[in-house]
Amino acid sequence: MKVLLVYAHPEPLSLNGSIKTFAVERLQAAGHTVRVSDLYAMNWKPALDAADSLDGAATGRFDASLDSKRAFEGGRQSADIALEQEKLMWADTVILQFPMWWFSMPAILKGWVERVYAHGFAYGVGEHSDRRWGNRYGEGNLAGKRAMLIVTTGGWESHYSARGINGPIDDILFPIQHGILYYPGFEVLPPFVVYRTSRVDQARFETISEELGRRLDTLETAAPIAFRPQNGGAYDIPQLTLRDDVAPGLIGFAAHRKA
Amino acid sequence: MKVLLVYAHPEPLSLNGSIKTFAVERLQAAGHTVRVSDLYAMNWKPALDAADSLDGAATGRFDASLDSKRAFEGGRQSADIALEQEKLMWADTVILQFPMWWFSMPAILKGWVERVYAHGFAYGVGEHSDRRWGNRYGEGNLAGKRAMLIVTTGGWESHYSARGINGPIDDILFPIQHGILYYPGFEVLPPFVVYRTSRVDQARFETISEELGRRLDTLETAAPIAFRPQNGGAYDIPQLTLRDDVAPGLIGFAAHRKA
Repeated sequence: MKVLLVYAHPEPLSLNGSIKTFAVERLQAAGHTVRVSDLYAMNWKPALDAADSLDGAATGRFDASLDSKRAFEGGRQSADIALEQEKLMWADTVILQFPMWWFSMPAILKGWVERVYAHGFAYGVGEHSDRRWGNRYGEGNLAGKRAMLIVTTGGWESHYSARGINGPIDDILFPIQHGILYYPGFEVLPPFVVYRTSRVDQARFETISEELGRRLDTLETAAPIAFRPQNGGAYDIPQLTLRDDVAPGLIGFAAHRKA
Repeated sequence: MKVLLVYAHPEPLSLNGSIKTFAVERLQAAGHTVRVSDLYAMNWKPALDAADSLDGAATGRFDASLDSKRAFEGGRQSADIALEQEKLMWADTVILQFPMWWFSMPAILKGWVERVYAHGFAYGVGEHSDRRWGNRYGEGNLAGKRAMLIVTTGGWESHYSARGINGPIDDILFPIQHGILYYPGFEVLPPFVVYRTSRVDQARFETISEELGRRLDTLETAAPIAFRPQNGGAYDIPQLTLRDDVAPGLIGFAAHRKA
């Protein structure tokens, strides 16, 4: 299996650094090929702007979507963007690993998504009309690949429980798992979350490693989160609301997963 | 009133640029003082790292939280961070304006939050023990101030409705409104959201301006979102789960707003 690990932490001697090293070694020991995009080490440019196209703003007025489309179609993207897209197309499985900062991914990783997810590559794919709203949410250029998050957070698991003050972890991760990974076609495996990171000693790190090891050993076989495909009949188009007979009465993020 | 507008869009000649200009002029015409942090124009550094402290990683091993604490307490923060904190303390009301990219704020704005929200400034404030989990979620250094989002998105309003495929807009914005704004003490006003940005002609821009103008005229008086304060008795500490008798049976983000 070919695995791309996109990793966003500034300190190699951190818990995240140790988890990354463990994950790479575990996957390699199982015979997989691993490539790592270590965004801080790469000095990844986080901010999407006109310089992402070799032609700059084609009309003199930068349009994030149209200039991305032109650059992607014309082979005029910044080389760092094209390389990450090549890695994504190469991989069977993509892992995003990051510390949760302010209830989302670090800026440097968000900027990887914004710049690498070009128009025509990750969105704006397929027919867009009154009867079809593109190949997305279960379809797209990354369909057939799997993805998984490895996330660390300082808070306790109870703080992220169904009635925990931060909100349920599945809901906090929905914009990433559904909106960033499922959107261009990935099947999304349940996340691996490490809580209470300030209290990780050697014994606990071994427990974490064992649990993560089991998850990495089953990357190919684990059941993905059962998000509903956009074009599978569950949604009215172009409103893109769930049909009345699908999960009747249910609202919010949970309605977009099959029970 | 003193208003800080934190603005994240790379193109001045965009819909966001026009909305920003309108907002500043409307507020000034009403007699308010406005400062703008135009993050792209400022070439804001998005990635949090050891360089955010003048002392670098104090122990040789960078710790995002501890090094931030040292730098904040010792007056050793990078000057760009200290200046934004000064603007936040100056303001009565803070507006974050951005295009929604991949269901969250642009990386450059996320990096503003990560770097400006120092330990001791926006988190790690107040007593942390088994009976008190800091001054946050309704308390903190930004208490008494108001905040509001101005957000644009290409999708339709129905795509962000209760059963819309992207998830309800209130839930998508919860990690920002509750996790980033309410957390250090802001009272959070309902967001101003512009949908379907590819179809904004002059007539529609005038409608948008009128609606936004009304929102800006009532910044001081509008009722904030009724998030539940952490230390107001609704949560068990230190688990930080809602007490059984508060919104019984309710789970998810909605449970953290009073009905």
